Amino acid sequence: MKDVHAMAPTRGRLTLRSVGVSGIRKPLSVQRKDRVHTLAATFEVAVDLPSERKGSDLSRNAEVLAELVDRTVERPVASLESACSTIARELLVRHAYATEATVSASAEYFLRRGISEEKRSFEDYLLLAEARARRSGGSRVELRRAVGAEAVGMTACPCAMETCREQLRAEYPALADASLASLPMISHNQRNRTRLMFELDDDAEVEVDDLIAAIEAAQSSPTYAILKRGDEGKVVLDAHRHPKFVEDVLRDLLAGLPSAFPGLPDSVGVRASTRSEESIHKYDVEASHRISLGELRRTAGR
Amino acid sequence: MKDVHAMAPTRGRLTLRSVGVSGIRKPLSVQRKDRVHTLAATFEVAVDLPSERKGSDLSRNAEVLAELVDRTVERPVASLESACSTIARELLVRHAYATEATVSASAEYFLRRGISEEKRSFEDYLLLAEARARRSGGSRVELRRAVGAEAVGMTACPCAMETCREQLRAEYPALADASLASLPMISHNQRNRTRLMFELDDDAEVEVDDLIAAIEAAQSSPTYAILKRGDEGKVVLDAHRHPKFVEDVLRDLLAGLPSAFPGLPDSVGVRASTRSEESIHKYDVEASHRISLGELRRTAGR
Amino acid sequence: MKDVHAMAPTRGRLTLRSVGVSGIRKPLSVQRKDRVHTLAATFEVAVDLPSERKGSDLSRNAEVLAELVDRTVERPVASLESACSTIARELLVRHAYATEATVSASAEYFLRRGISEEKRSFEDYLLLAEARARRSGGSRVELRRAVGAEAVGMTACPCAMETCREQLRAEYPALADASLASLPMISHNQRNRTRLMFELDDDAEVEVDDLIAAIEAAQSSPTYAILKRGDEGKVVLDAHRHPKFVEDVLRDLLAGLPSAFPGLPDSVGVRASTRSEESIHKYDVEASHRISLGELRRTAGR
Amino acid sequence: MKDVHAMAPTRGRLTLRSVGVSGIRKPLSVQRKDRVHTLAATFEVAVDLPSERKGSDLSRNAEVLAELVDRTVERPVASLESACSTIARELLVRHAYATEATVSASAEYFLRRGISEEKRSFEDYLLLAEARARRSGGSRVELRRAVGAEAVGMTACPCAMETCREQLRAEYPALADASLASLPMISHNQRNRTRLMFELDDDAEVEVDDLIAAIEAAQSSPTYAILKRGDEGKVVLDAHRHPKFVEDVLRDLLAGLPSAFPGLPDSVGVRASTRSEESIHKYDVEASHRISLGELRRTAGR
Repeated sequence: MKDVHAMAPTRGRLTLRSVGVSGIRKPLSVQRKDRVHTLAATFEVAVDLPSERKGSDLSRNAEVLAELVDRTVERPVASLESACSTIARELLVRHAYATEATVSASAEYFLRRGISEEKRSFEDYLLLAEARARRSGGSRVELRRAVGAEAVGMTACPCAMETCREQLRAEYPALADASLASLPMISHNQRNRTRLMFELDDDAEVEVDDLIAAIEAAQSSPTYAILKRGDEGKVVLDAHRHPKFVEDVLRDLLAGLPSAFPGLPDSVGVRASTRSEESIHKYDVEASHRISLGELRRTAGR
Repeated sequence: MKDVHAMAPTRGRLTLRSVGVSGIRKPLSVQRKDRVHTLAATFEVAVDLPSERKGSDLSRNAEVLAELVDRTVERPVASLESACSTIARELLVRHAYATEATVSASAEYFLRRGISEEKRSFEDYLLLAEARARRSGGSRVELRRAVGAEAVGMTACPCAMETCREQLRAEYPALADASLASLPMISHNQRNRTRLMFELDDDAEVEVDDLIAAIEAAQSSPTYAILKRGDEGKVVLDAHRHPKFVEDVLRDLLAGLPSAFPGLPDSVGVRASTRSEESIHKYDVEASHRISLGELRRTAGR
Repeated sequence: MKDVHAMAPTRGRLTLRSVGVSGIRKPLSVQRKDRVHTLAATFEVAVDLPSERKGSDLSRNAEVLAELVDRTVERPVASLESACSTIARELLVRHAYATEATVSASAEYFLRRGISEEKRSFEDYLLLAEARARRSGGSRVELRRAVGAEAVGMTACPCAMETCREQLRAEYPALADASLASLPMISHNQRNRTRLMFELDDDAEVEVDDLIAAIEAAQSSPTYAILKRGDEGKVVLDAHRHPKFVEDVLRDLLAGLPSAFPGLPDSVGVRASTRSEESIHKYDVEASHRISLGELRRTAGR
Repeated sequence: MKDVHAMAPTRGRLTLRSVGVSGIRKPLSVQRKDRVHTLAATFEVAVDLPSERKGSDLSRNAEVLAELVDRTVERPVASLESACSTIARELLVRHAYATEATVSASAEYFLRRGISEEKRSFEDYLLLAEARARRSGGSRVELRRAVGAEAVGMTACPCAMETCREQLRAEYPALADASLASLPMISHNQRNRTRLMFELDDDAEVEVDDLIAAIEAAQSSPTYAILKRGDEGKVVLDAHRHPKFVEDVLRDLLAGLPSAFPGLPDSVGVRASTRSEESIHKYDVEASHRISLGELRRTAGR
């Protein structure tokens, strides 16, 4: 059969940065400490394409993915991110004409969490992973990886809280009582969605549960599926005792990373973003930052 | 050319309830009191198909829509719902083999609203409309219409508020002061999305701005794009002075309809639903009901 | 603590049809023939609410779900639909004031499929399930269940195919050769998404893989993740040898059910819908029908 | 009232790259050649935040947007992109502590198009715009803008077409007739979504209708809402006479830009991406590239 992909392009002899497939869903068996998780992952995989070639052999992308997934049924992978690394390396083997392969993946992830031991149930999070393999002379391949997570929690606004305190003090003189100075006041609070991503070199390893813990510690409060009446009160109180703008969530998250991840090298790149789905507006509020772990170590402790 | 649609089906000689097109986007000029709005509407239009016919002439659906939209450039329609009615009637004319035509449409809608006159800006809502035309003997066509709206507002939880009051009273004895009995307490609050739909017979008319006003009056508070510091405090206070479960939003909305729409007949069908995107959970809370305006008049006043 | 939910509503003493939670994500272990699948399912659960009660005890919904999910870690459920039935029954136990409980769930589902044995890989489908439990006097509960699936496949248009045949015959006289009468001609083809749902009474069981097989048999062709050059040709040829309108997909699907499910009773309700994401339009084409299996047995064989 | 935003951050004294609001929907009146369009636009606006400041004054973002939108009711803006530029400049005025402001916007856009003059109706496209304002010493502000569009069209696969030709020739010897050498053969075809974006400096202007025309010219065929039987044949034929991989769509689009936009400077940055929603797979195929117009002029003509 005619190999149409290997023909020359009719027009526009350009090297293309990225040609691939997206939205491929696959079940992936991942070995966690004690048990095997099955992640339903979405993959996006691509390679570059040289100027003299009409098309990329996209069926190879699907094959690489399928073979890896099949192997994990017998032998689970260590992580979503190690799956991405394996795929990126293999793409360069199968697409001999390519110089760079990129893989990104996301998957829902469940953790048993609860406000107390007996109220634990599964909470859902998002895992994120990326890998980029690049030929770097001879048969050597340079690999850059990223691993991340997203967690939904709660924020309470520190500004509206102070405004309400002033407005209510005018209305309720008894609030001026010194013993009520620290009384948490009403504010608006909302769903907050925060994402943290580490760009890794070499073979540094990151445990995603630690990423999720870091995110939840930076929000006004984590949220839970099961909350009886008293528990609801505790979460609401906790959130209002830690009122935070998205700016606070982001800075608290970043400032906590040096102590939470002491073993990671300075060269690790950090991407963080957070979005609050405001209850008092129809739109969202967002903040994002990008910095190296080394720079964080030098500055965020201030 | 061969009329493949008019041929007999190869297999399964069934009358089909609904065959049509969906996701058609069109700009629609609508005449409002003082000015012409351009709605970007999504349409879904369908007719039934008799058992002896292989296919429905779907290009006619697109033509009916296009002709109506073209006419509105010169002569705006009165409402999204009157556009649906016109389309439904015309579908029965063009699909001579059909006995019923259904049209549904939704469109974003902007209203200038604000917490005060000088802070008004555009807030976005959703308009909803349906029409169903049915042949009822001879050339007569029976028409059933529905018109509705969706508004995003805010709810504050009445249960968590009382729990927090009790928990804080234990911690702050000064809260027991009688003058603080009505002090609004912290709770969780969130985005609420409420939808109201009227099923109309005959030629009763409903003003969508009145539907939106009814919804916003039933939420703990409306929300606004522009809120300066003091305004934020007002909205938060307003919401916490009207704490509501989704059940309360739904009942307050329904209970207010008889007085808000005195001119509509008892036969009007009412569909209402509300969803709160909980700040303390990762999932949503919902309530819905369906009742006639007549039944509401008899019962909801209690 | 004050039980705010059990208080009387402030206004609008209406029984509400449905109050519940939606968008709860849970991992669910399901026992299939030979192995345990973990489904990531989305649940929506609700009960009705009597007029004298302000709120529904929604934390019980989350508890019922969590307990069921926890049990499946040790003892997998038989199906998504049996999980829904168990939840619906349990909701009536925990919400003593409710007369009806409804549960619906959906989950992605992977099957190893391929155009040939050695090219099998995981294809993704959607599982659907519903259960409705209703008190029917004394401690008796009446249960109605539904089980369904959605599969993505391909349709090729039979009308454009004939039009192209005529247009090309005018241009290429050699096409008139009798030996080319059955030559498949170019047409537009597209992604088709078809859904089939069975409403069951008593304890009839349906195997979802059979639902998926019925859907894929009714489309112009199934689609696959891994297709080498020759396989692509086979799929394209297969689709163009079975050109179908959405009307054809729907009728062929329905007409095939009596022979595919001989053991199910006549009383089974069938809901089917299909949508083609047209390649020659920016909008979709849809068809849907609802009928009993008994009626299908009487009519669709014609 | 206490200005909580102006306080020092509690922890993590970091300058944050981006703090803002997203998902704000606004109606925007835009002056086109002959008439005023009302776009329903989604805006995302943000500024950076210095390390000594706890929060960004986000209400100012909503005010800037609202004021601009209000002005356009009387005096329409020239384009979505000029609105973004105005907003970006104004954000730097209102956020005195910020050094950079970014604005991005998207809006649905309707054009009257048809396969022939009498079958024209509204087709929907997507407009895209970005602006980035940066303080560059004194009161000077440096502005970078981008303007783009997305159009949905159709692609037919050139590889499957050749495979089918070979397979059908084996089955239909009459196809070997020399007069049938150019006969368009069956293939898979699908919805294609292609996006083109120009990054502009200075005051270069780009007409979005020209971007849309460039995209539609690069796809196998544009698509239309109204197609009667003969027209369907024409579109299908046109697509199969221009079979294209996503790689071809991308290269043809890029290669055509130098002649389509002769007046734009070499420094213009070009971002292009294209996605085909494959009919024979459940996943999508994508290609993307980024290049300067100058480099395109030097290379793509080859």
